Amino acid sequence: MTGSEACDPTTRQRIHDSFNKQGLMGLLRASLIDVAPGIVEIELDANSAISQQHGFVHAGAVAAIADTAAGYAALTLMPWGRGVLTTEFKINLLSPAQGRLRARAKVIKCGKTLTLAQTEVVAADSGKLIAFLTATLMAMENREGISD
Amino acid sequence: MTGSEACDPTTRQRIHDSFNKQGLMGLLRASLIDVAPGIVEIELDANSAISQQHGFVHAGAVAAIADTAAGYAALTLMPWGRGVLTTEFKINLLSPAQGRLRARAKVIKCGKTLTLAQTEVVAADSGKLIAFLTATLMAMENREGISD
Amino acid sequence: MTGSEACDPTTRQRIHDSFNKQGLMGLLRASLIDVAPGIVEIELDANSAISQQHGFVHAGAVAAIADTAAGYAALTLMPWGRGVLTTEFKINLLSPAQGRLRARAKVIKCGKTLTLAQTEVVAADSGKLIAFLTATLMAMENREGISD
Amino acid sequence: MTGSEACDPTTRQRIHDSFNKQGLMGLLRASLIDVAPGIVEIELDANSAISQQHGFVHAGAVAAIADTAAGYAALTLMPWGRGVLTTEFKINLLSPAQGRLRARAKVIKCGKTLTLAQTEVVAADSGKLIAFLTATLMAMENREGISD
Repeated sequence: MTGSEACDPTTRQRIHDSFNKQGLMGLLRASLIDVAPGIVEIELDANSAISQQHGFVHAGAVAAIADTAAGYAALTLMPWGRGVLTTEFKINLLSPAQGRLRARAKVIKCGKTLTLAQTEVVAADSGKLIAFLTATLMAMENREGISD
Repeated sequence: MTGSEACDPTTRQRIHDSFNKQGLMGLLRASLIDVAPGIVEIELDANSAISQQHGFVHAGAVAAIADTAAGYAALTLMPWGRGVLTTEFKINLLSPAQGRLRARAKVIKCGKTLTLAQTEVVAADSGKLIAFLTATLMAMENREGISD
Repeated sequence: MTGSEACDPTTRQRIHDSFNKQGLMGLLRASLIDVAPGIVEIELDANSAISQQHGFVHAGAVAAIADTAAGYAALTLMPWGRGVLTTEFKINLLSPAQGRLRARAKVIKCGKTLTLAQTEVVAADSGKLIAFLTATLMAMENREGISD
Repeated sequence: MTGSEACDPTTRQRIHDSFNKQGLMGLLRASLIDVAPGIVEIELDANSAISQQHGFVHAGAVAAIADTAAGYAALTLMPWGRGVLTTEFKINLLSPAQGRLRARAKVIKCGKTLTLAQTEVVAADSGKLIAFLTATLMAMENREGISD
């Protein structure tokens, strides 16, 4: 990661507070596992409520935790009052998603306007790579309703 | 769309049956609106259960309906017994997602192994473009558990 | 296309002047064929100087004309003094690239900071779809050296 | 990298031979710097012949070396007689490309049909990250004209 700004100790709580405001993360029963400067981990257990038609975890649910982890990895490097929005992401789905999934995001390049982050989604037990995402996050400042 | 195979009248029911097996679509309360050869539409109403932290619809939920529509658009062109899996998608998020969302997918190129589809996600009332996705779908045959 | 600003008649010359400054387009012997508000076409003839190892046109050359067309499609909608830079693109390569190629770009969504454009690359003779690109262009203003 | 097959010592020469058949790499004056199992490096010097309109290296040239490096990283893990074709790539362009560029590719996941690779393009002198690409490579066997 390059171009990062310092991330102070209050950030961890800030990310947790924001995560808890996400209706979708609650609906999917995803958990925020780890927060560090430029790094965020989220976990999700496979279950029938988040399946696609063959019984695997739906790519949309995999993408949801991968994108969320990427966004919060970026947010750990933003000063207070600046929020982030995803402007685009690509996800490659490499293996059927089953069992407990762990999305590990890290910032690749932190910029003033745009930040690039990547997320590896792995099987929590075996470490097998399930999916790989890269996302562009846009910093938003002084935009009503967009912070953290 | 090019390279498509014939899509017989039973396909509509086949797509509905498969859609109804998707736990995630039920959890998000998404609806399958339209099915035609190479074309599928899915709708989703914004609500707090699928929000991100600022109250907009989560990019993961937008991606979920967009990817599902793209996958089923591809499946409308597949012979019985052949299923599809998404191998990758990119989504550009263009406007905050609010209100009723409509994901309109169409096949761009139907191939023996790989099919490319695109989905426009628009605001159902204004037609405003919310997101744009392109997805690669891989045809799966004689793979246990992968059909429709 | 939505959100576009008016494009006055002088734009055509502006795009041609900028295109002619691109060393790579000259090196590849690409031609600027058409310019209209939100739309740009570029053509390129297959030849051994731009091949990959199997003799097809290299994906990098296909991407180069597709990205350039997308960027100029965006530039047709920008006021004087504002330039564009590509921040990301994805390209799906659908058929081996041979013969004369035509890259047809159009703006999908024109925004203040970010613009999304798509490019279809087709075989000029048959119309067969060779590649499909989506690109995000960032508007740059008052940045030394970045205009048109 | 996971799922790789053994890469025997003859592979290095095989990659060099294939690289030398690429007209575009010669036209751009790109150099194959390093080849190891699952890893390939290519370098390219900025010059006016490969510029875009502001004088930076054209995104198409950056993408060309990044895609080529990714493809050859995948090919290092393929048995003789099997070739690879890029089916899609996304590239994020993070900083203006100037000076000597180094594209460092590595395989993320090697599969029977599809392989995922990533390429970092950095400034050779400073190590600054210029671009980040992920590419899907499709293995081709018994397809006339497609090998190495």
